[in-house]
Amino acid sequence: MPVPENLNIVPFISVENMMDLVIAVGTETFLLELAGYIEDDFRRWESFDKVPRVASHSRDGVIELMPTSDGRLYGFKYVNGHPKNTRSGRQTVTAFGVLSDVDSGYPLLLSEMTILTALRTAATSAVAARYLAPRNARTMALIGNGAQSEFQALAFKTLLGVDHLRLYDIDPAATDRCRRNLDRFGFRIEACRSAEQAVEGAEIITTVTADKQNATILTDNMVGAGVHINAVGGDCPGKTELHRDILLRSDIFVEFPPQTRIEGEIQQLAAGHPVTELWRVIAGELPGRRSETQVTLFDSVGFATEDFSALRYVRDKISGSRYFNQLDLLADPDEPRDLFGMLLRRQAALAAA
Amino acid sequence: MPVPENLNIVPFISVENMMDLVIAVGTETFLLELAGYIEDDFRRWESFDKVPRVASHSRDGVIELMPTSDGRLYGFKYVNGHPKNTRSGRQTVTAFGVLSDVDSGYPLLLSEMTILTALRTAATSAVAARYLAPRNARTMALIGNGAQSEFQALAFKTLLGVDHLRLYDIDPAATDRCRRNLDRFGFRIEACRSAEQAVEGAEIITTVTADKQNATILTDNMVGAGVHINAVGGDCPGKTELHRDILLRSDIFVEFPPQTRIEGEIQQLAAGHPVTELWRVIAGELPGRRSETQVTLFDSVGFATEDFSALRYVRDKISGSRYFNQLDLLADPDEPRDLFGMLLRRQAALAAA
Repeated sequence: MPVPENLNIVPFISVENMMDLVIAVGTETFLLELAGYIEDDFRRWESFDKVPRVASHSRDGVIELMPTSDGRLYGFKYVNGHPKNTRSGRQTVTAFGVLSDVDSGYPLLLSEMTILTALRTAATSAVAARYLAPRNARTMALIGNGAQSEFQALAFKTLLGVDHLRLYDIDPAATDRCRRNLDRFGFRIEACRSAEQAVEGAEIITTVTADKQNATILTDNMVGAGVHINAVGGDCPGKTELHRDILLRSDIFVEFPPQTRIEGEIQQLAAGHPVTELWRVIAGELPGRRSETQVTLFDSVGFATEDFSALRYVRDKISGSRYFNQLDLLADPDEPRDLFGMLLRRQAALAAA
Repeated sequence: MPVPENLNIVPFISVENMMDLVIAVGTETFLLELAGYIEDDFRRWESFDKVPRVASHSRDGVIELMPTSDGRLYGFKYVNGHPKNTRSGRQTVTAFGVLSDVDSGYPLLLSEMTILTALRTAATSAVAARYLAPRNARTMALIGNGAQSEFQALAFKTLLGVDHLRLYDIDPAATDRCRRNLDRFGFRIEACRSAEQAVEGAEIITTVTADKQNATILTDNMVGAGVHINAVGGDCPGKTELHRDILLRSDIFVEFPPQTRIEGEIQQLAAGHPVTELWRVIAGELPGRRSETQVTLFDSVGFATEDFSALRYVRDKISGSRYFNQLDLLADPDEPRDLFGMLLRRQAALAAA
């Protein structure tokens, strides 16, 4: 077998290259194509190794590893969640990820995933909403106007045709910024002074707040019949956004139940409370929305397969492009068993130079 | 609080920079200093979050994530083990790792760890042997002369004064290469034609073979009284090197019992078979070697704290040096909640350029 060259090199997508890739593809097209990869992988859900993410909790946040594999590719994401980070100019959530070849164990791609996570979370929400939201929904309340809000808005516009947004954030400056950022994308946008006001007339309610605590962003009286709730912000133990009564009258759809029962809104419910796995709906095994009056809830926490899909997508997109660098990440001695000799030869080369 | 600059940047140690760092420090000094970090962290074992590594097994190998944290720093390593990789010119084991700040969740360092793993494995073996090997041992059988063998030899020379090596590998070319690579380091080296021959007169037996199967590198009759066995190669389910009878008459020392019972030589024994945690010996809680006739066995599988120590060490070593690059890994918008705005501003800048 011919030995491939440059076995030491792993393609790397920096933050700047990720931005340039998204801009070159177009944010809306990127979300649409990415949603296709996510949907494809949900459809073949049973071919994935699935484990709840491996979380390391500390006083102010959490660091998580999210691995999965389909037997041909292996992917994992490193992601933190530190709500107080904004005080020091840092992101609440940063992430990076790796896609590898299962047969050799060699990484095929290292990528920033702070931007990519926002995109995949939004794409996943919109994929779920295509099965769960009221038909022809065009109005969405967007509660929490932080780093992920515009991505959610654009995904719902691109995949569902949502073009009317009702924004609310406890920080009016965040709402102003979100509105400004979305200015050119053809939405009708209303800034609201309360969550109560934001949900008025909304067929879809997206909650994407960041506090690490049990908050009550939505109370039961705020959720009318027929609404779809896209609950994105509650995603770790002790961090929820919805009042328990809403959960009790909703049909709840989740990604991976063992993880969602720990991290999602349903941590407020009994361990046996019935939920529907989203993949079964996407695969056509179970119905999504069944009636005009049903309240549907996508209790999104983010699952490893979605990151896997995102890494798979960007790997395909950068092929032949200039949107990556070559990272000297893997030792590649002339003779594979001679790792120490590589060091000796480097030493000789340095001495000769 | 002043906002630090360049929050997007994570220092990155490439393979080349790792080699240059090791060469600049000197391999023996590097092993000695690294052993100090490993010993320090074993001594404060109880301050670490410990979980068995998260393994994804496939037909030809395994991909593992090994996280740990001491509450201030968080580290993880990605490592694969694919014995057939050498056929395609690849390494059996490659690795990279990340060290992060627990308070912010931000990565502080990304490093190659293929070379670093060989160094930390050897340093850990030598640390263990200082407590377990016969006093003044100078002769070591080294069975398996692949990628890790020279590192083991040098660590035992540097930390214990072992200067007589008896080499054996099923592939004589591997033995030749190992011997040649160690030529300048002041060992007396004998190439042996069998494992039986190699162990003759050896006070320490190091097994570091790579097959993913239950092999019997050592049988019971080969192990005399008073010997210390440093069993490095058996490190995943179904991969062992020693005959069970050896285990039954050895005092067995392990890193993290829940992991070693799955991956180590002791997977051959009952779940309740007594073992001693190495950290308790290093911390002075329990004795190491107690007699001249005792057979001691370090059932090494490699644990996350050792990688943590290694990352901590290289982070300290590269401070102020030229042995790293700056990696644009983390999105850093002007305003932390404005991730989407960063994309818009990049787009505007590209359009204006």
